Amino acid sequence: MLDTNALVNTQIFLKSSPKEKLLQENFELKETKLTPIIDNQVLIEIIYISIDAANRAWMQGRTYRSQILPGDVMGGYALGKVIESRSEKFKIGDYVEGDLGWQNYAIRDEKELIRASIRSSENLHMSVLGITGKTAYFGLDLAKLKKGETVLISAAAGAVGNVAGQIAKIYGCKVIGITSSDEKANWLINELGFDAVVNYKNNNFVKDLRKLCPEKVDVYFDNVGGPIFESVLFAMNNFGRIICCGAVSQYDQAAPESGPRGVPGLIVTKRLTLRGFIVMDFEDRKKEAEKQLMDWIEKKQIKPAEDIVIGLQNTPNALIGLLNGDNKGKRMVRINK
Amino acid sequence: MLDTNALVNTQIFLKSSPKEKLLQENFELKETKLTPIIDNQVLIEIIYISIDAANRAWMQGRTYRSQILPGDVMGGYALGKVIESRSEKFKIGDYVEGDLGWQNYAIRDEKELIRASIRSSENLHMSVLGITGKTAYFGLDLAKLKKGETVLISAAAGAVGNVAGQIAKIYGCKVIGITSSDEKANWLINELGFDAVVNYKNNNFVKDLRKLCPEKVDVYFDNVGGPIFESVLFAMNNFGRIICCGAVSQYDQAAPESGPRGVPGLIVTKRLTLRGFIVMDFEDRKKEAEKQLMDWIEKKQIKPAEDIVIGLQNTPNALIGLLNGDNKGKRMVRINK
Repeated sequence: MLDTNALVNTQIFLKSSPKEKLLQENFELKETKLTPIIDNQVLIEIIYISIDAANRAWMQGRTYRSQILPGDVMGGYALGKVIESRSEKFKIGDYVEGDLGWQNYAIRDEKELIRASIRSSENLHMSVLGITGKTAYFGLDLAKLKKGETVLISAAAGAVGNVAGQIAKIYGCKVIGITSSDEKANWLINELGFDAVVNYKNNNFVKDLRKLCPEKVDVYFDNVGGPIFESVLFAMNNFGRIICCGAVSQYDQAAPESGPRGVPGLIVTKRLTLRGFIVMDFEDRKKEAEKQLMDWIEKKQIKPAEDIVIGLQNTPNALIGLLNGDNKGKRMVRINK
Repeated sequence: MLDTNALVNTQIFLKSSPKEKLLQENFELKETKLTPIIDNQVLIEIIYISIDAANRAWMQGRTYRSQILPGDVMGGYALGKVIESRSEKFKIGDYVEGDLGWQNYAIRDEKELIRASIRSSENLHMSVLGITGKTAYFGLDLAKLKKGETVLISAAAGAVGNVAGQIAKIYGCKVIGITSSDEKANWLINELGFDAVVNYKNNNFVKDLRKLCPEKVDVYFDNVGGPIFESVLFAMNNFGRIICCGAVSQYDQAAPESGPRGVPGLIVTKRLTLRGFIVMDFEDRKKEAEKQLMDWIEKKQIKPAEDIVIGLQNTPNALIGLLNGDNKGKRMVRINK
């Protein structure tokens, strides 16, 4: 049996709240002693930490979870294995997931955990079959795509965006991506089958967008908010739908900017529907989504795109880089012990 | 038989596009000669002109209709009676409605007209049974009200707002209004049965709102946009619905301001649905709405609120005043000939 008393935990703390852009100096890595678990708790060895733009938003204030403050272990969704248990629900060897934080080991009450059923590999469980893949799935479910519609996706090379684009193609839509480099644009078109991609860092973003979809946009899957959201509002078709999934353009700064012009005026005149959602609200449909996504992967209709960083110590940089748009596909940190 | 050749028309033209606030000098009244009607056309004597905030928005640019430009007869929804006809669809004496403009007589092709069935009186046909009453009806239909929910309505003393509030009461909701004077606030509470009303011109708008609905807002029926929209976003409950009906705060100025902060960030974290609509999209459900509204009026569950201005020459001031919030209930101009 494992002598958990002999284990040393490594934890990454938020040392200071970022003033504007998130920096490495906002974090601090410390070795700490694990405390013994009590009734209903389990000790978890973390395998993968999910890196998500939302991690940065959690530092700005209370969202759907409490704010992360200096002195807190940095929060983060993660996959791990139970290595010690005083819970009747989970036994040693079980895969579990939840907000396990940026650390090698986590102690959690059984109520804070979800059992993870690994349908394929651990990394696929974190990418297409994980939170971000399911976010793409349920977001497009809300959009009620019709064959032949034009679907625009921002942060298209990101973990959610790339899957959303591939799903929209399966539904027979014309799929346009928005991304921040020509390299990612080419990858999305050549590797993942997007019909076209616009690089918003080019000066002609609005013109380029108009050229790529002269028929205008029926569904906009928005991951970024900000000025791109505003530009797209003007490019929407009557009765268009905007799926509000995230606002990454607003996370890595002091405070959100003023909002997009045209709200709510254009929402009225174009009869738009805007729909905000969070994947956790769809917990009861999780299996349906995983089954469908797995099926699409097996039929090679979805190509998983993973961006794996090795080592807990690299987690801060993994997030900082993600906020700068460095990743292609789902970024996660593999804990090597 | 009427000698229509002897009739002189009086028309109000847009003389110049308003630079900021709409002024009387932006209009010009002229007497003109009626031209003979041709095949499929009818000559209409106008009875009531509807005064709507949207009239001002039409001067800003193309919306769901073409922009009104200097030299155009001012547009406006109106009710009239056919007094000469070369149409097989409409005969002399028929009530018709449509965008008949600010004038005593209108010549229109039959395709531009809708037959008006007057269920009760002409003025009721313009108010609760008219476009604005039906706008309230269909807007709340989209909101899928549940008994006991808190419904907040801006421009609550306006033509749409006052009916929306009365309907939400029928559905068993707690109804809070937003208006621009204590006098209108008292009227909404004492005459129309609103539970509470906040005067946004008081300095403590956000505080007052929080005090009146500590349980937060489930449904916001927005007629105004702008800073009020922004404040309400922060007061919404998770899974709340915002019905985007108009943006009157943005109409009477040069160009729309920057948009509300929190879009789309709060839409995501609060999982809001925003839904824009225009009553004309519900043409096929018109009879259902009129029947239901008439029934509520007969049962005294809706009290019609009408604000009738007499005389075509007073139409510009009627609109200018409406944009300043002078009206209580549905404002319309009765043409006296």
